[in-house]
Formats: sequence, structure tokens, C-alpha cells
Amino acid sequence: VLQEQCCSSLHGLHLPLPLSQLGKMTLQAIKWQDNQLYVLDQLLLPLESQYINVRDVKDGWQVISKMQVRGAPAIAIVGCLSLAVELINTSFEDKDELLDTINKKLDYLVTARPTAVNLQKAAEELKAISKKLYEDNLSVEDMVKLVSSWCQKMLDDDINTNKKIGWFGAESILKSAGGRNVQLLTHCNTGSLATAGYGTALGVIRSIHEQGRLAQAYCTETRPYNQGARLTAYELVFEKMPATLICDSMAAALMNCRKIDAVLVGADRVIRNGDTANKIGTYQLAVTAKCHKVPFYVCAPTTSIDLNLGEGKDIPIEERPCEEMTDIAGIRIASPGISCWNPAFDVTPAELITGGIVTELGVFKPSELHTILQAQ
Amino acid sequence: VLQEQCCSSLHGLHLPLPLSQLGKMTLQAIKWQDNQLYVLDQLLLPLESQYINVRDVKDGWQVISKMQVRGAPAIAIVGCLSLAVELINTSFEDKDELLDTINKKLDYLVTARPTAVNLQKAAEELKAISKKLYEDNLSVEDMVKLVSSWCQKMLDDDINTNKKIGWFGAESILKSAGGRNVQLLTHCNTGSLATAGYGTALGVIRSIHEQGRLAQAYCTETRPYNQGARLTAYELVFEKMPATLICDSMAAALMNCRKIDAVLVGADRVIRNGDTANKIGTYQLAVTAKCHKVPFYVCAPTTSIDLNLGEGKDIPIEERPCEEMTDIAGIRIASPGISCWNPAFDVTPAELITGGIVTELGVFKPSELHTILQAQ
Repeated sequence: VLQEQCCSSLHGLHLPLPLSQLGKMTLQAIKWQDNQLYVLDQLLLPLESQYINVRDVKDGWQVISKMQVRGAPAIAIVGCLSLAVELINTSFEDKDELLDTINKKLDYLVTARPTAVNLQKAAEELKAISKKLYEDNLSVEDMVKLVSSWCQKMLDDDINTNKKIGWFGAESILKSAGGRNVQLLTHCNTGSLATAGYGTALGVIRSIHEQGRLAQAYCTETRPYNQGARLTAYELVFEKMPATLICDSMAAALMNCRKIDAVLVGADRVIRNGDTANKIGTYQLAVTAKCHKVPFYVCAPTTSIDLNLGEGKDIPIEERPCEEMTDIAGIRIASPGISCWNPAFDVTPAELITGGIVTELGVFKPSELHTILQAQ
Repeated sequence: VLQEQCCSSLHGLHLPLPLSQLGKMTLQAIKWQDNQLYVLDQLLLPLESQYINVRDVKDGWQVISKMQVRGAPAIAIVGCLSLAVELINTSFEDKDELLDTINKKLDYLVTARPTAVNLQKAAEELKAISKKLYEDNLSVEDMVKLVSSWCQKMLDDDINTNKKIGWFGAESILKSAGGRNVQLLTHCNTGSLATAGYGTALGVIRSIHEQGRLAQAYCTETRPYNQGARLTAYELVFEKMPATLICDSMAAALMNCRKIDAVLVGADRVIRNGDTANKIGTYQLAVTAKCHKVPFYVCAPTTSIDLNLGEGKDIPIEERPCEEMTDIAGIRIASPGISCWNPAFDVTPAELITGGIVTELGVFKPSELHTILQAQ
């Protein structure tokens, strides 16, 4: 549990806005209303805002796989909620059939995308909870109700987690800045659209903005899917933050020309030693930041941390279709006939994460992660 | 003058193909036929191949400024040839009017784009030549003829220069590779389309391919104008070289996953100390290459070298309109309302050019440039 006062005084810094006052809700990527699940189709943003009604696990798998919803926390929540909808709308003979269905559907859901660990961890937890409920003296209906409630609670939990990440990240960055307002660079989209709300890396930027301390936010386009240009830029404009879009290749030139106080990114999976899989281009940004002595932060809930893996090379990296690079909005932009290499993620080694890993429990050095999490 | 035999034995390497056998002509960005100038519209490539008839200096300025032709050597050639066309089709009262026109039109042409130095240097040379012809006992007609011939000769000279760059670059890279075939990464377009033919950095790759030693060429998309995805990929496919397109942000991950033997880029301006202005993203690639111990080569004719400037920060860097980042083929890809930073070039400091600077005179360390060129 976050001890706000304690942490604040621990770090010798009192931010003007306490945690409890962070974050008006703005954009909503995931809606749960009257036992129905709606997901904002992020492939259509920013030109169209259209919600997809996700009616079952098959729909859930589809919207995740097609990247209509993306972002490690959002993927986990949508996956679990798609199961909740399906359970609510299905008649089960008995608890055996229910438990069997839950297990099978979860095994199927985690195959939608391999790199992010959040859905995998949520699935494991949900299986354990279901097994426990099964063993208790509950009716099928009560079991469905409790499983479904657990899934719905992920939405609130994620927002609270993100606000804590935002608060801790702001504290760490502003401490180094002295009294100056800060200029920050972020990659991909880690905001309201990648989570249940508020965001991780973009949550930290949002928090610094709320504290009145954001001079400028820079966001990369994030090729090939342009999550930066389409989604992060959309959130920054929506929230009226001072913001500038750059191409992915401009980060080094930017760090050379203008003072950048920190680079902040999210994570699809952080492993035991702190090595972090995140959107392709993250590793190059980290190399660039290191060379320019700009602190590099990974911002992620502890649900993105996978203590089971020991080395970055063990993280499965998804490769996506060529067309995501060669075509935009149905228009061919690359020469016909050219082959592509399209990894969706890369791995940033822990030693490049110089600012720290910002979680809902505080900001840690990559080497501290293991001990901190095992103490929880 | 290149001493082929000498250089080859000097470096202790005999490439299977001598310089004289390099380079079948393929794509032609600039055509001069019957005193008419045609320029391939590179904004329409790869989907359409359409030539623009450049009828005068105003047309020349336009195609350069709108980037229908680009690449430092090609810009210089098109600029000068657009003057040749205009001179051929104009009646002059006397030699004073002719000389005055040449000087004024050249001053205008160099304003089309500020970063590349080749057109600026060609303009200075052409002014000096014109002044000399003016002082000689020549008719207006003869003077126009000689100025025009000088401009036309730039086409042949550039191809010969590029083949020498290709040959020297190949020699240097293959020497380090031992007997292995090599994997190379290049940025932007520096091929037939950026020059009179053959290319600079892409000329080196072409030369290595002709020597039968190219395992794989990787090219970056090169946002925001996609010269890599549109033009380099087009040339690589056209020439049937083994080639793969990556996003600009994937270079670090690529160097981590696969053996890259060298990164090769062109130059818009190399200055006295070796600092090099080139397409935005070049600096980030150089930082990334250094971090991965991959040799980084700048490939450029000596006409791209500007001994007048002493420090990278003195090179004027063109900033281009926002729309070149936010729109592709008339389609908005970024969120409405977002601001952009769109520098067209960046400066790579000499110490990151670890492979060397490949010119038509040989491969040099950045620190050697000054001495070598002054000895010419």
C-alpha cells in the first residue's frame, strides 16, 4: 500500500498536488456498462472515435490481435473482461464445466499477442481464483458473479496504480530538475488509451503537467503503427499539454539541440534483472539517451514484471506482418517487392534504464526489483 | 586522378571487378536530351514514374525546393542544367547581360535549399568560369555553348565520381570482412536517384553487390519523406539485390540481433573537421553504430566537402513544413492540432564516422580531409 506522506517526506519533496487530487478522467479506451464491454477502436483514431462491442472471448482475442486495443495493461483488462461477458451470457451445466471453460478460454486469450506479460499474469491469477471458488461451496451463478467482479475491478485498480506511477515518477524527475520546468520525451502510447485510464509513462507526464511543471512534452511518431502520432499526440492535444511531435529518427538531434530532462517509456514485460521489452524503438532511444546523459525511465505497473524470466533474450518478441510497415490507411508507401523486418518490440538492457523503473510502489533501480517484489 | 592499380595493390586487395567494369546504368533521375532537361518526379515514386520538363531556372528552383529532385549531387546538377536550358533559350543583348544573368540566376538557385553545399560550390565555380569566358574574346553564343557544356559535363563527371566512391568503399569494407559476404545498413536515398547515376553510399552497396559480396542490404524507411522506403527500396528491388526494409527506430535492435558489417550514408555537407550534415536520423544511426561497434561510413564526392566551415553547428539546417510529417499522400496520419519539429538534416560529429569518409580520391579519416583536399 502506498504511504503517500511517508514517501513524499522520504524523498524530501512535497509536490503541490497530492496523489488524491491527480487525474480528471478524459479519454476512455475501455468501457464496461450493464455487463457489456466496449472497446475504442484505436486503429481508427484520431480521425474516428468508434467503440466496438466485444461480446465474447473470440471478439476479445480479435481486438487484441488486430491491435484495435493495445498497451500491456489494456490488453490484460480487455482480455479478462471479454471472458466476463462470455461467462455472464452462457449457461453452464455445473461448476466443472464453468471451471473448464474459464481455463480453456484464458489459455486461448493469452495467445493473441506473445510479448506483453500482463494478460498472462492476470490469466494465471484468475485461474487460481476460479479454482479456489470452485472448491468453495458456491453456486455456478455466484462463481460467475465473483469472477466477473474480479475482472471489473481491474479497471479501477489500474487507474489507481497509474496515478501512483504518475506521482512517483513526477517526484523523481522534478527532484533532479530543481526548480525548473521540465522537457520530456516519450515513445509509443502509454496513456489513457493503453490502460484503463491516466497512463503509465504518459501518466507521469500528465502528473507533471498537473503539478504545473511541464515545459514541453515531445512524442515520437512510433513507426510503423504510429501510436505516437495518432494516439499520444491525440491525448496531449486533448489535455492541452504543451507538446511537439517528432519522427523516431530525430531523438538524438533533439537531445543535442534542446535540453531533455528525461525519456519515459512504458513496458510490455520487465524481467527479473530489469531488462525490459517494450515497443520497437525503445532500445534505440535508450542507447541515444545514455549517450546524451539523459535519464531513461521505464514506467510500468508491477503486473508488467515477470520474475520468472532471467534474461532479456528469453522474452518472446512478436514479429508483425510486412503490410503494417509498407501501407498506411490502405495506401502503399514502400516500393513494391521489398522485404521487411517488422519486430513489434525490442529489449532494453537494464543498464540503460538509468532513471529507474517507476511502479506503483515507488521508483527502483532495475537491480532492486527482485528484492522489492519478493518482499510484497 | 584515380590510379586504380596503384590503390588496389596499396591496400593489398584485388577486387574481382576493376573500376572500369562497375555499373550498368539503370534508373535515371536526370535526363538531358536535345537541349531539354527532364527530371524524374521523386514525389510520385515508386507508384508512378513521371518526368518533369524543367524549362528554366524558376522551374529548377521549384523542383529542388519541392523535393521532386533531392540528393546533394542531383540538386547541384539539376540547378546548373536548369540554367543551361534557360541560357540556350534566351536572346542576350551582349556579354554583360549574359554574365549578369548567370550570376543572378545562380544566386537565386542556391536559395532553393540551404543545407547541401554542392549546388553552392558548383555555382561559385560556374561564376568563375563565366567571368573568365567573359574576359576572353568570345561571342555570346560561344559563351552560352561553353557554359552549357560545362553543366552537361557534370552528369558524366558525377557518374565517374560515384563509381570511384563505390570501388573505394567496397575495398575498405570487404578488407575488414575477410572472406565473408557482408550485411550493410543504409539511410535515406543515395543511389541513382540522388545523383547522376550509380550513387554514393548506395553506390558502395551496388559495387559490393557487383563484386558478388553482398549478403544483405538493409535500408531504413527514412521518415518523414520515406526516401528509404520509396526510393532506396525501389532501387534495391530494381537491381535484384538481397534487401530488407526496416523502420528508422529498428536500427539498434537490428545491430543487436544480426551482424551488420557497416552503416553507409551520404552527405549534404562535410566540413573541414569532418563533421557531416546529412538526412535527419543520420546522427542517431551513428550513435547507435558506435554503441554496437559497427563501422560508420560517410560516402560523398569531394564536391560535398566545404572547407570554409570549421564547426558542425555552423551548418545551416533546413526545417521543413509540419505537413511533411503529419500527412502521407494527402492523408492525415497524425492527430489534428499537434505541433511538429521537422528538421530535414542533422549533424554527425566526426568522431562517430568510424569507418571513414569515402570520396572519389579514396577513404579518409575525417581528420585527414583537410590535408588531402588542400593537396589537390
